[in-house]
Amino acid sequence: MAGLLEDQVFMAYTTYAAIVVVKMMLMSPLTAYFRMTRKAFANEEDVAIRGKSEEEKKRMLKPNADVERVRRCHLNDMENIIPFVLIGFSYALTGPELSTALLHFRIFAGSRIFHTISYVGAFPQPCRGLSFIVGLLATFSMAYRVLSTILVL
Amino acid sequence: MAGLLEDQVFMAYTTYAAIVVVKMMLMSPLTAYFRMTRKAFANEEDVAIRGKSEEEKKRMLKPNADVERVRRCHLNDMENIIPFVLIGFSYALTGPELSTALLHFRIFAGSRIFHTISYVGAFPQPCRGLSFIVGLLATFSMAYRVLSTILVL
Amino acid sequence: MAGLLEDQVFMAYTTYAAIVVVKMMLMSPLTAYFRMTRKAFANEEDVAIRGKSEEEKKRMLKPNADVERVRRCHLNDMENIIPFVLIGFSYALTGPELSTALLHFRIFAGSRIFHTISYVGAFPQPCRGLSFIVGLLATFSMAYRVLSTILVL
Repeated sequence: MAGLLEDQVFMAYTTYAAIVVVKMMLMSPLTAYFRMTRKAFANEEDVAIRGKSEEEKKRMLKPNADVERVRRCHLNDMENIIPFVLIGFSYALTGPELSTALLHFRIFAGSRIFHTISYVGAFPQPCRGLSFIVGLLATFSMAYRVLSTILVL
Repeated sequence: MAGLLEDQVFMAYTTYAAIVVVKMMLMSPLTAYFRMTRKAFANEEDVAIRGKSEEEKKRMLKPNADVERVRRCHLNDMENIIPFVLIGFSYALTGPELSTALLHFRIFAGSRIFHTISYVGAFPQPCRGLSFIVGLLATFSMAYRVLSTILVL
Repeated sequence: MAGLLEDQVFMAYTTYAAIVVVKMMLMSPLTAYFRMTRKAFANEEDVAIRGKSEEEKKRMLKPNADVERVRRCHLNDMENIIPFVLIGFSYALTGPELSTALLHFRIFAGSRIFHTISYVGAFPQPCRGLSFIVGLLATFSMAYRVLSTILVL
């Protein structure tokens, strides 16, 4: 079983997959941080221990622009990082050159980190748009190799 | 390591997993297309370069029915395709018959493609509902085999 | 190929991954159940066969608090369970002690089941918050082991 972990490409895949998944998971504490500081919650039981008056509780249940921005960023991460990890596994098994594989993984990881910074920081477009497209193309390039190497329909 | 790719069932799994993940990823460009043509965006930086007056920008930030429909379809894909890929991996390792495995993979892939067409095209029910249920049952059937073959609690 | 399934840690991983993914998938039928009983739908084609008057149809398209609660729970599952399954795979390959691995898997599965019960049942905080944090820490602990064992940048 340890055979998989003797392969350099597979180890590189495991490393970058873990990095981007951890990055994605950090959006949860970030959302919690924005919910706390902006006092904007989604559930009645969350405001029950915080608000005093009924009016104050109602205000806390309204959506906040900053919280919604982090949530959209989290959802975009899920839409892009999970496909990368799933496709990347098959890609690593097709035995690409280590340098080519690393190029894909590094471009993807870099583009997603830049995407998060430009999304949360509300950078002017096309910062966010470009980083999103670069990440998408890296994953499509890996999917192309998978489907052109292995095809059992 | 290449051992996995000498197995016919695993190669079939890899093929169908790549196909449905690529299908799911194509929802992102489709959402972008609908956002552009319907002029409905989610972020202020997206409308900053498009709108002229403040009033026009505000209008562009309102949710659009077509965009929301594609987004719901994308979310439904994530709720169903990702479990299929995750469960399917363990399923392929349990060594099912190639014909049985292909039956599961083809039914799932077909049902999800039909689901997207009927969701985006707003086909009358129960088109979308049935395709959703068929895909769900295919994944549950694979999960049943995984849990009945391997169970270490 | 069957080599992976001769490893006790990997079999335990497969078992718990299948359990939490099936738990996550059950949120879809639960959402459908709440949509039916609360008569709150998201698409016009869903209400077309149910509502009689235009007014009744419009009412059915309004978001319902119970449905939204289940949907938030489902999304939170996806944000946490999918990273667990992805990281857990690499974690199982690093060859941890069976008892340590089982501890991680059991804590995670337990915390997520309790999370769902406390979310859908609207238990007072910090029930939901704590179960969320426990699950997150279990996954982070596995990611730490993966990145400290394998690191090819």
